[in-house]
Amino acid sequence: MPALVLVRHGESSWNLENRFTGWADVDLTANGIEEARQAGRLLKKRGFEFDVAYTSVLKRAVRTLWHIQDEMDRMWVPVKNNWRLNERHYGALQGLNKAEMATQFGDAQVLQWRRSYDVRPPALESGDPRHAKADPQYAALDKALVPSTECLKDTMERVLPYWDSDIAPDLLSGKDVLIVAHGNSIRALVKHLDGISDEDIVALNIPNGVPLVYRLDSMLKPVESSFLTAD
Amino acid sequence: MPALVLVRHGESSWNLENRFTGWADVDLTANGIEEARQAGRLLKKRGFEFDVAYTSVLKRAVRTLWHIQDEMDRMWVPVKNNWRLNERHYGALQGLNKAEMATQFGDAQVLQWRRSYDVRPPALESGDPRHAKADPQYAALDKALVPSTECLKDTMERVLPYWDSDIAPDLLSGKDVLIVAHGNSIRALVKHLDGISDEDIVALNIPNGVPLVYRLDSMLKPVESSFLTAD
Repeated sequence: MPALVLVRHGESSWNLENRFTGWADVDLTANGIEEARQAGRLLKKRGFEFDVAYTSVLKRAVRTLWHIQDEMDRMWVPVKNNWRLNERHYGALQGLNKAEMATQFGDAQVLQWRRSYDVRPPALESGDPRHAKADPQYAALDKALVPSTECLKDTMERVLPYWDSDIAPDLLSGKDVLIVAHGNSIRALVKHLDGISDEDIVALNIPNGVPLVYRLDSMLKPVESSFLTAD
Repeated sequence: MPALVLVRHGESSWNLENRFTGWADVDLTANGIEEARQAGRLLKKRGFEFDVAYTSVLKRAVRTLWHIQDEMDRMWVPVKNNWRLNERHYGALQGLNKAEMATQFGDAQVLQWRRSYDVRPPALESGDPRHAKADPQYAALDKALVPSTECLKDTMERVLPYWDSDIAPDLLSGKDVLIVAHGNSIRALVKHLDGISDEDIVALNIPNGVPLVYRLDSMLKPVESSFLTAD
């Protein structure tokens, strides 16, 4: 029975400053590094041995994975990075904190962007220096795929093709898989696996650095799942 | 013109203790970490931007690569790990230091193993706890491929198929490539690229953490190459 473990990156500097991050490539805080290492120690202690790891192209996720690999003494395991596992793109909200957003757009509007499944925040303009089109990291990517903003539904629609093309085949071939990603790319995977409704998925909280462990059947349907926490 | 950069891992704990390491999976020293970070800073300063990175499955190489990626702010670049880039397997010498080897085998014999291209040290027995067959890291690998000892010629013969299958195609497609590996897997690549004789390659010293930069023509023949050192 293949095992799948999902881990949201440790605390980032913008989590701490309460800023909307999205595709902004901010790093972990010291606390976030400790959360990552704790996740690694816990997974090792519970005997999890992954055969392949997936992560996004954002450094808060990559660094979280590196610390987990280091603690588990599995630095040799193959890693696949893909933009499809990135955080939801927050459009023009990226970099703003809650107070700035409320001033600029009003509380009701901000609440709608944060809590709805299919309403997008205002898009980043293509000349905006925050736009990923200007980033060498995404230079090889088809420009039509680079988002300017996303609702959770959009995130879901670019995560799932990667699940189908890469992650599911690894699980079906008997590999145990670790995915280190982001609040909303993990929500997309959980929604798919557990069949959660559009309304309910938005309210599901994915804590930083707490492994979510799935045991899947041969059709990749969840047999059991639970967050792993220290004794 | 594709660029290829070869970096030997930073100083490991057994480099420091003067022990033969081979496939033993020892870590970097604090000095080795600093060598790795210095290599990354130097490559960034000189404007090198790699599109893909290769390394072995040994942690002294993986960790060196991670520090280089971190200093270059290229943590998102895809990395391929392969056992074919591992250090030469040193057989029954692994873990022994020079004094222990001289006592056990005599100075003349040890010199021959260290300086000859095609004389193998005594093999590790398959029941030896140091044998890679017992290591989960190599469990997925065809048992016939796991060495018990190697001369440099053997190392060359398992490195080059990987050059042909993976590294050369990346270069031919226009990608700039970083390889972080080991003294003897790098010797194998240099011998191939520069057409160095069996006698001369054994005497070529590859320093820890000093980038060796090649510019290659469209047939992957070296146009120029040099070690990169701080001003």
